[in-house]
Amino acid sequence: MPSISMHSASVPLFQKQLGAMLAWLDKAEAHAQARGFSPDNYLQLRLAPDMLPFVSQIRIAGDTAKGCVARLAGEEPPKFDDDETTFAQLRGRIQKTLDYIGSVPAAAIDGSESREIVLPMRHRDPLRFTGEVYLRHWALPNFYFHVTTAYALLRHAGVALGKGDYLAMG
Amino acid sequence: MPSISMHSASVPLFQKQLGAMLAWLDKAEAHAQARGFSPDNYLQLRLAPDMLPFVSQIRIAGDTAKGCVARLAGEEPPKFDDDETTFAQLRGRIQKTLDYIGSVPAAAIDGSESREIVLPMRHRDPLRFTGEVYLRHWALPNFYFHVTTAYALLRHAGVALGKGDYLAMG
Repeated sequence: MPSISMHSASVPLFQKQLGAMLAWLDKAEAHAQARGFSPDNYLQLRLAPDMLPFVSQIRIAGDTAKGCVARLAGEEPPKFDDDETTFAQLRGRIQKTLDYIGSVPAAAIDGSESREIVLPMRHRDPLRFTGEVYLRHWALPNFYFHVTTAYALLRHAGVALGKGDYLAMG
Repeated sequence: MPSISMHSASVPLFQKQLGAMLAWLDKAEAHAQARGFSPDNYLQLRLAPDMLPFVSQIRIAGDTAKGCVARLAGEEPPKFDDDETTFAQLRGRIQKTLDYIGSVPAAAIDGSESREIVLPMRHRDPLRFTGEVYLRHWALPNFYFHVTTAYALLRHAGVALGKGDYLAMG
């Protein structure tokens, strides 16, 4: 009987959701074309003036996923430049993230429940977790936070997305 | 060595996040008092006219959590009436959800990876999953979706929440 593992509890969730986001971008682009504005205009939208803009929500969602996969596998997460200014570059960023995540073998992630994870912080001491606590109380809630905020920004901007798009239910 | 299990991958995430939401409600109530409006006014806020209001986001977040815990354990989820109209009732709803989730023994949930989960749908045939697929591609993404949308509504309304409140980092 297959049992839940650190790989099965992380990688397929990230892959499914990042794939869903690529489809949202298609719908957002079609909405922009129909309304006659550049899809690049989405990048700086914010839900509140002190929340991060759409471009950052997309970057951080992906960075949370790749950072999680890398750290659980004991690798250094690949560093991507935060320099996207166009919709096409945003799509490329998600695709690069998917490529990296798919490249890490399941066996490198499985068994990482007790691995020590050290997370560097900008303004405080690094956070230390076991692999499983890092996955469940840091990586997953952060990942879905940024994914859902990106979704909310597109909905707020009038893009016709629904729960089926969020869940990529087909 | 402790290893990830169906219980450890579900219940502690729900408990932590629902507890965090109770703390957001405290901050939202203080914000309402400082500005001189009733906190009950939050209940009908929406991010877009065709998105569900705050009260529904809170209900569905909790229902997703209790439904997941119940179904993985092979129980019928307890049914709560969707009749909250006040902030105090909303708090009670979250607390009732936490009480139920905490009452289900870990042993009833562990080992549910391959259990057949049948999810009744209002407008289509029921969805069928194995326990693990249900947890990772239905319950967790849905739960965080409604949690984050509730958070976004409070941020949009001017409540001074930050990422630390979302993650309940203390």
